[in-house]
Amino acid sequence: MKTSMALLLASAWGEGLALAREMNVSDLEKMIPPAGSITYDVVRSVSPVLEHYSRESLLGGLWKRPELSPRDRSVVTIAAIIARLQTYEMPMHFALALDNGVKPAELSEIIAHLAFYAGWGNAMAAVAAAKDVFQRRNIAIDQLPPVKDKPLPLDEAAERQRATQVAGNFGAVSPGLVRNTTELLFLDLWLRPALAPRDRSLVTVSALIANGQTAQMPFHLNRAMDNGLTQEQAAEVLTHIAFYAGWPCAMSALPVAKDVFEKRQK
Amino acid sequence: MKTSMALLLASAWGEGLALAREMNVSDLEKMIPPAGSITYDVVRSVSPVLEHYSRESLLGGLWKRPELSPRDRSVVTIAAIIARLQTYEMPMHFALALDNGVKPAELSEIIAHLAFYAGWGNAMAAVAAAKDVFQRRNIAIDQLPPVKDKPLPLDEAAERQRATQVAGNFGAVSPGLVRNTTELLFLDLWLRPALAPRDRSLVTVSALIANGQTAQMPFHLNRAMDNGLTQEQAAEVLTHIAFYAGWPCAMSALPVAKDVFEKRQK
Amino acid sequence: MKTSMALLLASAWGEGLALAREMNVSDLEKMIPPAGSITYDVVRSVSPVLEHYSRESLLGGLWKRPELSPRDRSVVTIAAIIARLQTYEMPMHFALALDNGVKPAELSEIIAHLAFYAGWGNAMAAVAAAKDVFQRRNIAIDQLPPVKDKPLPLDEAAERQRATQVAGNFGAVSPGLVRNTTELLFLDLWLRPALAPRDRSLVTVSALIANGQTAQMPFHLNRAMDNGLTQEQAAEVLTHIAFYAGWPCAMSALPVAKDVFEKRQK
Repeated sequence: MKTSMALLLASAWGEGLALAREMNVSDLEKMIPPAGSITYDVVRSVSPVLEHYSRESLLGGLWKRPELSPRDRSVVTIAAIIARLQTYEMPMHFALALDNGVKPAELSEIIAHLAFYAGWGNAMAAVAAAKDVFQRRNIAIDQLPPVKDKPLPLDEAAERQRATQVAGNFGAVSPGLVRNTTELLFLDLWLRPALAPRDRSLVTVSALIANGQTAQMPFHLNRAMDNGLTQEQAAEVLTHIAFYAGWPCAMSALPVAKDVFEKRQK
Repeated sequence: MKTSMALLLASAWGEGLALAREMNVSDLEKMIPPAGSITYDVVRSVSPVLEHYSRESLLGGLWKRPELSPRDRSVVTIAAIIARLQTYEMPMHFALALDNGVKPAELSEIIAHLAFYAGWGNAMAAVAAAKDVFQRRNIAIDQLPPVKDKPLPLDEAAERQRATQVAGNFGAVSPGLVRNTTELLFLDLWLRPALAPRDRSLVTVSALIANGQTAQMPFHLNRAMDNGLTQEQAAEVLTHIAFYAGWPCAMSALPVAKDVFEKRQK
Repeated sequence: MKTSMALLLASAWGEGLALAREMNVSDLEKMIPPAGSITYDVVRSVSPVLEHYSRESLLGGLWKRPELSPRDRSVVTIAAIIARLQTYEMPMHFALALDNGVKPAELSEIIAHLAFYAGWGNAMAAVAAAKDVFQRRNIAIDQLPPVKDKPLPLDEAAERQRATQVAGNFGAVSPGLVRNTTELLFLDLWLRPALAPRDRSLVTVSALIANGQTAQMPFHLNRAMDNGLTQEQAAEVLTHIAFYAGWPCAMSALPVAKDVFEKRQK
């Protein structure tokens, strides 16, 4: 659709691309409207102060803080955007993520991961947006993670503890869900080498915060920190995601993070 | 829009329809892009392993488990998709639901029910998608539930208990909400015969899980089981919905389901 | 896109505009499909009873209740729609809000406010919809709130109490989030005069309820009532928002509202 629409939309698209340009998205000239067509001009025509906040507080402020790398900020942002199904934001932030050092294979694997952690329909919407980005950049299937790959080593003790606890609590409640959780997620998806465990955890924690799923946070935030996410980085994930998921999601995650941080220091 | 767009989009649409075809959607040839245009080819071009999971774990695995019929799986799926506003998934899954034995009158009534249980805007998005499916299949208004129909018998004792409890707790907090809950929902919507109470409950519970609204689950899961949903089926709803609403929603529903199951056995 | 599409879509659009017409949206003839094209005819073709509920219970019932003015109902509705990213509903309800007395500057400021309280991507989707409404009505930038304006007076005691409490609880957990909350939100956004504090609170509370973020409700519902929202109005917000965010969101907000109301009476 978008290719065909491009002819009709050339004039609207010509209005400006300042926002994506300021973000230094490298394939700007090939981006196809209307995917990325929320420009600063458009934002200003509705809310001048929102343009100001976008330039100063978000792009000129948050994204330049040293507590997280631009690459990590892109990982957090695309996880939040996919988890909340903000389809409008996907093309620009997928392109920006690639420019910030997220490899095509990693973006691909993040989408597959979020099929399980944010819902199949969310991943399908991301597929539709990523397809165009990959085509524009000539990213072919040989750059993407294969279906089967040598699995990462399993931490058998940790997995046994997790599986035993979940099976003990819930094995009789929903046997199918408990079995799929073990076989599909922890013995398959999580062992795929296309995404480092620390990054897979970062995606998971970001999606949980963005969807307000605080009940699942303690396990996954601990796992993220076991996988190498530092406390300073985890703290900055909250600072960052407040803008993309809204302040209430970040504020509701604060007491959970506090509790996890404190228990790990004992 | 979609009819007009079809002319422009014929070439993109021609890429393939493997996913809908594999699901045996019967009016494939008449489906209008871009609604159902996420094909296996597109999924593979972004994530080969997500195509694999879609074929093997989801369509070839989950949907074939005997714990829930294909019809019930379609009811759960469309409730989750509407509740989470996954507009991209609606055309394919509405068509699949009809093929799986959900009657047009039932799909119609599910959408009306979810206007109240997932929000008017969610139902309106579903209306936009269902309209095209109904047109393609020549489903006319005489196949849809009438505005007024002979109401199902009311369980007066149960309703009196519910109404008394809610009015006692909250009648002074929001009189309008409490009155609408009784008059619009429990004395009107829930008594409409176009959807069996067991199915209406299945839709409600699925929407609650898909939106993470665990606080409302105990009442409605008990009601669903009073209305004939077996514990094995309820357990499988969790297994199924994990894929469409994401694992965290299903995991957060597990302890609530456990508690309901245990209390009913006493 | 929409302008170009209008030519293609004229026939579909001609089907009817009864819903927007019944709502007395004043620039109906200039509304561009498909934004507002869910008409009563379309709703009836999928669910006759949903047309009935839309006419009788929603437009003919809820919107005419005296407990909230039509203007306040529009404020609550657009906050819920933006918070839940119901893009389909935005054009009609933005236009209706202007007709109901929400000033263009207020609609503009509501969108900027919700960038922080519902997520940047939600605000960007609202920008895309509002741009068209503003263009149709010739609302230019001189009618919108400026970037810098004389701030409202700060309640220093209340802000000191809030900041001290949050910093004490969470200052060491996520210093960046805590600092942004003070500097960007409470010392900047909340002091902008383009939206009365009572209305800013009404938007915030509505977004929290619509997204099920009950943990953040006590602070903001108290603040709303400190800012002039009466208990009767707050109660009616629940009655109203049940239709747009779905009943479960309203029901989950009930015990929180009850607790806030009771504590304020002591």
